[in-house]
Amino acid sequence: YEKLFAKIIGIAKQFKKIGKDDPRRVIHSLKVGVALTLVSLFYYFQPLYNGFGVSTMWAIMTVVVVFEFSVGATLGKGLNRGMATLLAGALGVGAHYLASASGKVVEPILLALFVFLQAFATTFIRFFPQVKARYDYGMLIFILTFCLVSISGFRVDEIVDMAHKRLSTILIGASVCVIISIFVCPVWAGEDLHKLVANNMEKLGKFLEGFGDEIFKSAEVEESKDAKKSLIEYKSVLNSKNAEETLANFARWEPGHGQFKYRHPWRQYLKIGGLIRQCACRIDALNGYINSEIKAPEEIKEKIKETSKEMSIECGKALKELSNSVRKMNLPISADEHITNAKKSAKNLNSLLKSGINNWEEINLLQVIPLATIASILTDIVICVDEIGQGVNE
Amino acid sequence: YEKLFAKIIGIAKQFKKIGKDDPRRVIHSLKVGVALTLVSLFYYFQPLYNGFGVSTMWAIMTVVVVFEFSVGATLGKGLNRGMATLLAGALGVGAHYLASASGKVVEPILLALFVFLQAFATTFIRFFPQVKARYDYGMLIFILTFCLVSISGFRVDEIVDMAHKRLSTILIGASVCVIISIFVCPVWAGEDLHKLVANNMEKLGKFLEGFGDEIFKSAEVEESKDAKKSLIEYKSVLNSKNAEETLANFARWEPGHGQFKYRHPWRQYLKIGGLIRQCACRIDALNGYINSEIKAPEEIKEKIKETSKEMSIECGKALKELSNSVRKMNLPISADEHITNAKKSAKNLNSLLKSGINNWEEINLLQVIPLATIASILTDIVICVDEIGQGVNE
Repeated sequence: YEKLFAKIIGIAKQFKKIGKDDPRRVIHSLKVGVALTLVSLFYYFQPLYNGFGVSTMWAIMTVVVVFEFSVGATLGKGLNRGMATLLAGALGVGAHYLASASGKVVEPILLALFVFLQAFATTFIRFFPQVKARYDYGMLIFILTFCLVSISGFRVDEIVDMAHKRLSTILIGASVCVIISIFVCPVWAGEDLHKLVANNMEKLGKFLEGFGDEIFKSAEVEESKDAKKSLIEYKSVLNSKNAEETLANFARWEPGHGQFKYRHPWRQYLKIGGLIRQCACRIDALNGYINSEIKAPEEIKEKIKETSKEMSIECGKALKELSNSVRKMNLPISADEHITNAKKSAKNLNSLLKSGINNWEEINLLQVIPLATIASILTDIVICVDEIGQGVNE
Repeated sequence: YEKLFAKIIGIAKQFKKIGKDDPRRVIHSLKVGVALTLVSLFYYFQPLYNGFGVSTMWAIMTVVVVFEFSVGATLGKGLNRGMATLLAGALGVGAHYLASASGKVVEPILLALFVFLQAFATTFIRFFPQVKARYDYGMLIFILTFCLVSISGFRVDEIVDMAHKRLSTILIGASVCVIISIFVCPVWAGEDLHKLVANNMEKLGKFLEGFGDEIFKSAEVEESKDAKKSLIEYKSVLNSKNAEETLANFARWEPGHGQFKYRHPWRQYLKIGGLIRQCACRIDALNGYINSEIKAPEEIKEKIKETSKEMSIECGKALKELSNSVRKMNLPISADEHITNAKKSAKNLNSLLKSGINNWEEINLLQVIPLATIASILTDIVICVDEIGQGVNE
């Protein structure tokens, strides 16, 4: 029993954590509850029920399936469902009419042929990447509706009546979803994408700033665990591609809201996101050196340290500024300054290494290598950050 | 008109390409067509139709929604659908009974409350990562069935009859899907995961081998475009995390097949996949140096070149061997040899750098840095490859 008890507490804790991580999840669940209850009551009350008959079922189905977390996803699914039902319904009636006009013997063969060809073609089209990203659900509904309509044993006028009822109920369901998701605490996919990109930039910026402080500390100084944790945050950036693409696809369905116009350049976010990931990859390589002890002579260490630190911190600041200006949607003027500084330090480091060699005859090349690698990767990062800056400017 | 014509040709080409890239897509589309036609004919023929009534619709729905590309996904969705319908149906009948027993006035209030609470709780549970990965579809069906059953204006005995019919038709639909997807050219998610991981390893191996050949070539030698293309292949590895996780989730639903037992350690693939991505990240950093001109004196260049080349090629070979032994599912004995070689060259490089400095007084540190960085990253890669080797051994 104790085990069970501990497990229940564990689950309860997870509940709390998931709600706390993103309170919008709780609100979303409430919204779904309200939408379903509303539609269910339509279904329950007899006058409405008598008007639409069994078709009211479709309103509930639509709400359950269409209501998604973000406005974009809900709108996209709703539009997909509506359009696909309309189109497939019309085609299905056509197929049904053709088949029943061709005589009792040919009818089932023709119907089977239509269903087969349609299912084959539509399933294949679903493999198109562009279709998969935006119209996958519509394709599914298309197959479903076409089959149901063309196969149904009803007469054409019965079908038209049924289609009318079904479309109305789907419309009711979809409208309830869309209205609630837009007007009650809306979750905009576009805004999420916007924030995700800005946050990712900030995470990298944090790492670089932290790295500048940490890397040349002597190993004796004990690092606080918190600092380490904030350094490791950048890892999540590496795998953000999928999330960004999904959000961008949803965002394209969304109407204008807040700072965003209807045709906001969401693609640009994906481009910047790609650059950020590239930068994160470099940072991952850098991270391997964070705990390596550097045994180079003090004098050299001191000199390289200064400029490396500067590069790292300037890059970090630039990224943070960029992230800020993405958030506020203004031009990143102060970030440009930091990038210029970082570039300058990179140049300094270069000339330092070039000229310094004459004074440092005693060095062991092996000892300088970690320093050199760090410097070299940092130079790469400066270039990356510069590119990100250009992306943001656009 | 010419524009339209060109567009149609473009689409036709894309059709061909998508089919050629993975011929199983064409087969899958055919399978869906056959399954739907089969079920539709059930629906069409009157004796069966009279037995099940409108419920036959559910067989078609089930086929359309459940039939997925891989066996694992189809099985997972089918089981989810079946279990969720059963469970939600039972609970729904209970709720319906409770509500109707409590009098005309309280009934709608109680029903609304049930629907609201259930929708709220289930929607929230869908946010659990473990649930989202494996039972998301079941949760959806749970909400749907519960609402439909509890709200329906029928008497309890009518509901039981309806539930019986609906469950049977869903069972028929799901069985058709599962049988066709398992016995007609099955697509196993587990096998795909297995191949994906092996392929990713091979891609990295190819890059490292190619890198060993390319990096120290003088810039004059023109590179063939093909060689460059094969080098760039590794980039796809960086973003493979999502695909791997999806496949692993599907694979867990699959029964034993071919070389795989029922409880094959799919998690191990994810672990190895993570290591491979880490390695790919290092390689991405390395890739930045592939076209950088190295101006170091010939003598040093020659020496470092030899060992670096060896490291890179040995790592590449090791990865290829590992990929092979994953494919054939045997222990990677020859890969171990290559790893040992790579480690030896890494050591050589280290001592070369340590001792060499006395002979190379004239060098410009700046010129050696790219070499040093390459060497250093390669050393990291050797460690990564070693870890991957251990992962494969497990």
